[in-house]
Amino acid sequence: MCRWLAYSGSPIRLEEMLVKRDRSLIDQSLHARQGATTTNGDGFGVGWYEEGEIPRVYRSTHPAWNDRNLKELAAGISSPLFFAHIRASTGTAIQQTNTHPFRYGRWLWMHNGLIREFPRVRRELLLAIDDSLFPSLEGTTDSEAMFYLALTFGLAHDPVAAVERMVGFVEEAGRKHDVEHPIQMTVATTDGRTVWAFRYSSERDSRSLYFSTRMDTLKAMHPDSAELASLSDETRVVVSEPLGDLPGAWNEVPESHVGIVQPGDDELRAFAPRQ
Amino acid sequence: MCRWLAYSGSPIRLEEMLVKRDRSLIDQSLHARQGATTTNGDGFGVGWYEEGEIPRVYRSTHPAWNDRNLKELAAGISSPLFFAHIRASTGTAIQQTNTHPFRYGRWLWMHNGLIREFPRVRRELLLAIDDSLFPSLEGTTDSEAMFYLALTFGLAHDPVAAVERMVGFVEEAGRKHDVEHPIQMTVATTDGRTVWAFRYSSERDSRSLYFSTRMDTLKAMHPDSAELASLSDETRVVVSEPLGDLPGAWNEVPESHVGIVQPGDDELRAFAPRQ
Amino acid sequence: MCRWLAYSGSPIRLEEMLVKRDRSLIDQSLHARQGATTTNGDGFGVGWYEEGEIPRVYRSTHPAWNDRNLKELAAGISSPLFFAHIRASTGTAIQQTNTHPFRYGRWLWMHNGLIREFPRVRRELLLAIDDSLFPSLEGTTDSEAMFYLALTFGLAHDPVAAVERMVGFVEEAGRKHDVEHPIQMTVATTDGRTVWAFRYSSERDSRSLYFSTRMDTLKAMHPDSAELASLSDETRVVVSEPLGDLPGAWNEVPESHVGIVQPGDDELRAFAPRQ
Amino acid sequence: MCRWLAYSGSPIRLEEMLVKRDRSLIDQSLHARQGATTTNGDGFGVGWYEEGEIPRVYRSTHPAWNDRNLKELAAGISSPLFFAHIRASTGTAIQQTNTHPFRYGRWLWMHNGLIREFPRVRRELLLAIDDSLFPSLEGTTDSEAMFYLALTFGLAHDPVAAVERMVGFVEEAGRKHDVEHPIQMTVATTDGRTVWAFRYSSERDSRSLYFSTRMDTLKAMHPDSAELASLSDETRVVVSEPLGDLPGAWNEVPESHVGIVQPGDDELRAFAPRQ
Repeated sequence: MCRWLAYSGSPIRLEEMLVKRDRSLIDQSLHARQGATTTNGDGFGVGWYEEGEIPRVYRSTHPAWNDRNLKELAAGISSPLFFAHIRASTGTAIQQTNTHPFRYGRWLWMHNGLIREFPRVRRELLLAIDDSLFPSLEGTTDSEAMFYLALTFGLAHDPVAAVERMVGFVEEAGRKHDVEHPIQMTVATTDGRTVWAFRYSSERDSRSLYFSTRMDTLKAMHPDSAELASLSDETRVVVSEPLGDLPGAWNEVPESHVGIVQPGDDELRAFAPRQ
Repeated sequence: MCRWLAYSGSPIRLEEMLVKRDRSLIDQSLHARQGATTTNGDGFGVGWYEEGEIPRVYRSTHPAWNDRNLKELAAGISSPLFFAHIRASTGTAIQQTNTHPFRYGRWLWMHNGLIREFPRVRRELLLAIDDSLFPSLEGTTDSEAMFYLALTFGLAHDPVAAVERMVGFVEEAGRKHDVEHPIQMTVATTDGRTVWAFRYSSERDSRSLYFSTRMDTLKAMHPDSAELASLSDETRVVVSEPLGDLPGAWNEVPESHVGIVQPGDDELRAFAPRQ
Repeated sequence: MCRWLAYSGSPIRLEEMLVKRDRSLIDQSLHARQGATTTNGDGFGVGWYEEGEIPRVYRSTHPAWNDRNLKELAAGISSPLFFAHIRASTGTAIQQTNTHPFRYGRWLWMHNGLIREFPRVRRELLLAIDDSLFPSLEGTTDSEAMFYLALTFGLAHDPVAAVERMVGFVEEAGRKHDVEHPIQMTVATTDGRTVWAFRYSSERDSRSLYFSTRMDTLKAMHPDSAELASLSDETRVVVSEPLGDLPGAWNEVPESHVGIVQPGDDELRAFAPRQ
Repeated sequence: MCRWLAYSGSPIRLEEMLVKRDRSLIDQSLHARQGATTTNGDGFGVGWYEEGEIPRVYRSTHPAWNDRNLKELAAGISSPLFFAHIRASTGTAIQQTNTHPFRYGRWLWMHNGLIREFPRVRRELLLAIDDSLFPSLEGTTDSEAMFYLALTFGLAHDPVAAVERMVGFVEEAGRKHDVEHPIQMTVATTDGRTVWAFRYSSERDSRSLYFSTRMDTLKAMHPDSAELASLSDETRVVVSEPLGDLPGAWNEVPESHVGIVQPGDDELRAFAPRQ
């Protein structure tokens, strides 16, 4: 339904990941190969950290492939940590407040997938959002509701537990309304230092999710890129669909797992909804 | 904060009311005289009835004065009953789902004013919306929440009572949150046959609201308009700010009143919130 | 690069052709099958005749598939003659003035294809446009330049000859700049009564173009459609890609030909550039 | 017609000039005081230099006051030299390619004013644009035509002479078409190092144009701004309408003059059209 990319590591111009490559994210907005939809033309967004803790966000309702401002900004902005997302709506309105990544304080959140029968369970989900967070809810998507539920359940303190509780809550709400498989998701979230990437679905048949294997492999993919050559070994890219075709460059995140990109060793943990 | 116009009577091209006149609604989008804001450039919308019961709606986030499609449509569409609204946001996002008029089934709704401290009371108001209506809520404005509350309170059966209960409910919610004057509004709503136009504010100092006096007067205003000359005597225009300057053409709706434009005699009734 | 549809016959709601069918034009905006591009998401336009000679035009830079106003208007507007176009840009800017159909007086024009190396020949083409027409030129596409050249060469008086001269002129200009195959086109144009549909390319390998065979066949395609059942036998649809898959419903316009849909017998004539 | 601002000096976040001040440029988009129009809601643009010679440009057709991306970018981007422009169209289409600043190579250009009777003289002006520049012309405004004429007349080599020749050429073209006062302008242009700001009109009654007096004065205006306190003494702001009301902070550029902001002493020279 959507495609996304999370980058963490040596500061890099956004265009290196979003524009320049064959099968870059912008290329995927016209021709995704592994998604449920091949066209992701219902808006896009980019969120990035520079100085300070609060990320900047640029979001638009136009298709990524024909947005000139995106190309300008991607050429001008360098960042050590950024999220990018291209949207294929599953029914909710095409408007800036429904485009990813969503931001709350220093947190970003983006999602590929859906809450099934969202119109029927939406009210129940919104009611569970903390009173103090509610005024910041601006759009009407399932994805944003998931973010605010996760915030309600303690995203800032224990992200994995909070997302597990969020998923548990959504599944419980879905079951009450007789929804067979309430949630389908790959989700990325970050506080500007660590990136958490989740792969889960109620039916245990989740959308694809990949980590870049190792930076030396990525460098091998693009031997002509001076910019990549200078990237630190800790640099990682997480994507819903691989960029480029080099064998061995990408590791699939297993079903029902969460990958954690952080200073020091990265982690891969089993993920299970909790109530 | 906004300006609006409701037309009921002989079928007329929309451009006669929206474009052609001095101080037309489009003119008011650049230079309103009586509003709290002089520029109403945060989007606009038009809703109209043709054949059938379901009105058509055209809404845009661009300023009305520079939207070419609006001029095309206003020149092409004739209707016996239509609403038009130009928006000046009081803080909520500029997006199509936040532009008026709002539609539910055969009903249209538009609003000038605001619910004060809306972010603080929003959650409580949304919770009161009927479960069956909730999935149709698409935007994030106070105005749309008012519409769905009125629907919840029986708009389709007794519009005046439903709006009185909605206002009573909003005032009650506001008071709980220590808001001194919770609501300020002129509202128009219609089922495609009758138009109800409300003027009310908690502080009893409501935004302006006018009825066209009588069609013979309106015709006298524009003696050169063949189209106006042919209008029935039942034709009425309700506006937040008069079109044109002809003395005697407009009657102000009194504070805390509702005007009802309907087949046969129109009505003017006192309006009071109820709980 | 684009897809288009021209309808002429019994008045019909636009949505019958644009929205409701499998492989409708809106469906083709996401998934065209015969075009050079599968996604046509760079804007769209509709032009239609109601009363009077001047057609109305609605054009937008958003993808047709996610434009709510288009669905509203297509449901509300009936017309005996309309054009619809979905765009995949070949490089020129995504802006309303670059979307088809283009209008001049009572004429509409839309195009699928391109003038090769347009940036290099553009200046020479613009210089050939008549002085009195030049101020009406608003966009920057090859397609609009072709329209104004055809107008300059007498479109209003002898449409086929004017388009033949336009193509001859473009080919001559291209050759001067060493362009091997200067023009590729299917073009539809109309004065509100007759529709001319051209298929031509310098390399004699033109984009696809189809006429609906006969109305009785089209009715057979959609036996459940009360609206189609009532269409006159003179009703014709011309499309760059067939709607629906019924064998026998569509005739391909031969290479280097022009089809003429008019009151009385339609015509099919050979088409050749002239100088 | 429009408002603009040029900044040159110590690197500063764009929001310091565009958003934060009373009577900032965004504030002027809603409520200009000295312009021919009070609302400048027909799009806006920002152009800035970072590393490298090619400036970045962000342009939008939405009003500056309600564009969220502008606020994000203005908070995130620092630059030692930037242009910002808010547009009130004098008739040409509202589209990104018609918003200022225009860019060619390392040059930026923005304009307040108009070429009178532009539709009538446009063709003649376009014909004078150099063949090699013509393909880069993307919009349809008088302002962009002025830029490309100035480039044709040697902007890159002798900016003042080139603009004088451009104005002379436009006046000559206007006179041929019996236009009494062919041009009205304040123009800013830059190559990324020097800023030239022109004030001229055929009727010798030009739109307003101001230089910030001296940086110590500007600092005095905003004693609470730590960011301003650190600005170099060479920092200068050129504006079509003063920011803030501090007496003595702004010097008006005299009629028919050009101001030059450059490393070392700035200059103020008389300006006269030449042929």
